[in-house]
Amino acid sequence: MAPHATPGLLSPDEALRARALRVIPGGMWGHMNVARLRPGYPQFFRSARGCRLFDVAGTEYIDMMCGYGPIVLGYGDPDVEAAAAEQRSHGDLMTGPAECQVELAELVVETIPHADWVLFAKNGTDAMTACVTIARAGTRRRKVLVAKGSYHGAAPWCTPSLAGVTAEDRAHILHYDYNDVASLERAADEAGRDLAAVLVTAFRHDVRRHQELPTTVFAQAVRRICDMADAAMVLDDVRAGFRLHIGGSWEPYGVRPDLCGWSKAIANGHPLAAVTGNDRFRDAAQQVYVTGSFWCSAVPMAAAVATVNKLRATGAIATMETMGQRLREGLEQQARAHDLPLRQTGPVQMPMIMFDDDPDFLLGNRFVQEALWRGVYMHPWHNMFLSAAHQPADIDRVLEATDAALKQVAELSDRRQSAKEAQ
Amino acid sequence: MAPHATPGLLSPDEALRARALRVIPGGMWGHMNVARLRPGYPQFFRSARGCRLFDVAGTEYIDMMCGYGPIVLGYGDPDVEAAAAEQRSHGDLMTGPAECQVELAELVVETIPHADWVLFAKNGTDAMTACVTIARAGTRRRKVLVAKGSYHGAAPWCTPSLAGVTAEDRAHILHYDYNDVASLERAADEAGRDLAAVLVTAFRHDVRRHQELPTTVFAQAVRRICDMADAAMVLDDVRAGFRLHIGGSWEPYGVRPDLCGWSKAIANGHPLAAVTGNDRFRDAAQQVYVTGSFWCSAVPMAAAVATVNKLRATGAIATMETMGQRLREGLEQQARAHDLPLRQTGPVQMPMIMFDDDPDFLLGNRFVQEALWRGVYMHPWHNMFLSAAHQPADIDRVLEATDAALKQVAELSDRRQSAKEAQ
Repeated sequence: MAPHATPGLLSPDEALRARALRVIPGGMWGHMNVARLRPGYPQFFRSARGCRLFDVAGTEYIDMMCGYGPIVLGYGDPDVEAAAAEQRSHGDLMTGPAECQVELAELVVETIPHADWVLFAKNGTDAMTACVTIARAGTRRRKVLVAKGSYHGAAPWCTPSLAGVTAEDRAHILHYDYNDVASLERAADEAGRDLAAVLVTAFRHDVRRHQELPTTVFAQAVRRICDMADAAMVLDDVRAGFRLHIGGSWEPYGVRPDLCGWSKAIANGHPLAAVTGNDRFRDAAQQVYVTGSFWCSAVPMAAAVATVNKLRATGAIATMETMGQRLREGLEQQARAHDLPLRQTGPVQMPMIMFDDDPDFLLGNRFVQEALWRGVYMHPWHNMFLSAAHQPADIDRVLEATDAALKQVAELSDRRQSAKEAQ
Repeated sequence: MAPHATPGLLSPDEALRARALRVIPGGMWGHMNVARLRPGYPQFFRSARGCRLFDVAGTEYIDMMCGYGPIVLGYGDPDVEAAAAEQRSHGDLMTGPAECQVELAELVVETIPHADWVLFAKNGTDAMTACVTIARAGTRRRKVLVAKGSYHGAAPWCTPSLAGVTAEDRAHILHYDYNDVASLERAADEAGRDLAAVLVTAFRHDVRRHQELPTTVFAQAVRRICDMADAAMVLDDVRAGFRLHIGGSWEPYGVRPDLCGWSKAIANGHPLAAVTGNDRFRDAAQQVYVTGSFWCSAVPMAAAVATVNKLRATGAIATMETMGQRLREGLEQQARAHDLPLRQTGPVQMPMIMFDDDPDFLLGNRFVQEALWRGVYMHPWHNMFLSAAHQPADIDRVLEATDAALKQVAELSDRRQSAKEAQ
């Protein structure tokens, strides 16, 4: 540590941030960077169990982020960790895959109705990039339709920042508006006979805006337009997969993709991603060359087998839904009581909680900060995630915190209103 | 299993392959697919310890691939696994990084002379793509020079197969010949004032050809050309890093990059990649948006701290060099005794062993197949890897197998020669 650092005056988290700032650009990269959140958000964590998270000072939180999605059964789920430990005692990364790769592939193909085959990777970005590449190889076309504002990963063709991205990286990307069939048709017309694929997220879960479930009309239009153009329908189920429906998030709409990208919850926090596809794209998937040093590692695959089996065998998804419903109803009641325009959107197990007329997130930031001080880790503008480890008592603890937080927000809102009226 | 499968007549590996073929395109993707190797190569493995690998039938091999590079201290290294287990008992993937992320970042910056900062990822492809993006963001230019045939990953801009790749994915990639200064200068001239970066692998380790160490003149020319053009010099140390020199593979040449990509050996088989950079590119690294769901997972970082510390504290790299030398000299003697034109190229701890005048790999394939039958897993046309777990007795066991294998190759070579003469 350099001489000017004064760790004695800093909290453990602040001390780590000061050290990180010297050796990591900006102190932290990517979506887990809390620089854009209010002060008090811990950047570093010491441990996690079930739905509880402990920061480096030992403060306990009920975690409403689940590691930004991967934790679907709870941190350190005993069944998943037992399967991982058993595989680890034999081998993880080797000079080829272990038997559990085949076991997992069979389980995925059996579980996901559209899937005739699967291949595995490490990142959601790997999966979505492979989907695009396979769609292009299979159709021998180039144009890819993407909804404006949808997040499909952090590679140059899709990353939200344009720094270091060239025009050519996006040359064949055309945009449509989520849930807007006419805009989708226009984009498909523009692509014409060069339309390789339509990419669509399981629902609209863009940051900093209310979430939107797909309408059935829209979901069916995506399928119809792909069929008419002989293009690949690509579902991005990286964020929502294995949390809304075991067979894929569009099963309730009766719409099945040709290719689908998965990651996050597939192995309850172990690093894994997957591409599933139907037989039409099997040859194309064999032609493309996608791989990575750790893509055949066995431990995450054993963990995924245990995760998918447990999701299937237990009511884990139903539990998340019930708990999400309990949270949503409790919050609705509280918002009414405090007379606040709270809006909750998206699936209940992946809540987005924002206030109307709060473009600068003044109310939203205050809300989550007050909850944080009361031991609940929420996010003001990224969707949150429940896990099957969230029990009724946890949700009730969350609701205690949010009630007190909303009281503070109501006072802030009143003061803001008075200040406006005084102008 | 479908009715036409007859597992009773298949070996355990064949039975798994038959099952895999139904649910994974081609039965296997990427570099670990053994379809292009001779029959008898196991596709699946049951376990691994030290330098030993066991296939699903329980057959034991001395592994000369080390998982295609990640295993640098040996499978299941007790110090690395103890550090991983300790971190795992607290938390792995959480809603933010653990303290060990800072510890690892500090250790990397302290260990790698050119590095002022580091960020972490999962795949070598992540690291190299981030290097290109950061170079472009930092220089506000687009052209990237890549050596013909060099492997930098499996994303559309660099993957070896063109299936599903568009012309635009490669729009700003220009080529030069490895170790050829004039060709590098020509490519740099062509890029002109749009030159963002020169990418270069630690040495020439393309598949299916003899390896080449960089000449000092070439290494210095790369640095000089980047300096003159104010472009980023990007070293791809994904494959060779932490195996040749603890500070980076070009330290012995006195040439330091601006940006460097790492993965494979950094955490002895745990999934991790890294980008290091100097202060010139710190702002650019902060501007680009690169991230992944598992990039902050703590266990691989704890494993990396233990791996780098052990590589530094022990003579692990020197051990690999001594063992590589022992193997090379033993093989040279054997080749002379059998009168075979065996060529061994590249660093001794990353051997490539091929025969002259063997374009169809007839001799090479026979050589490694005979070695495989004798319990040594070698590769005919991809460089191999030693680990610090390879002991003199292991190398001597390898040499016993290669001596017997070369005897068979000599007979095959004689028969081929006689057949030619008879024509």
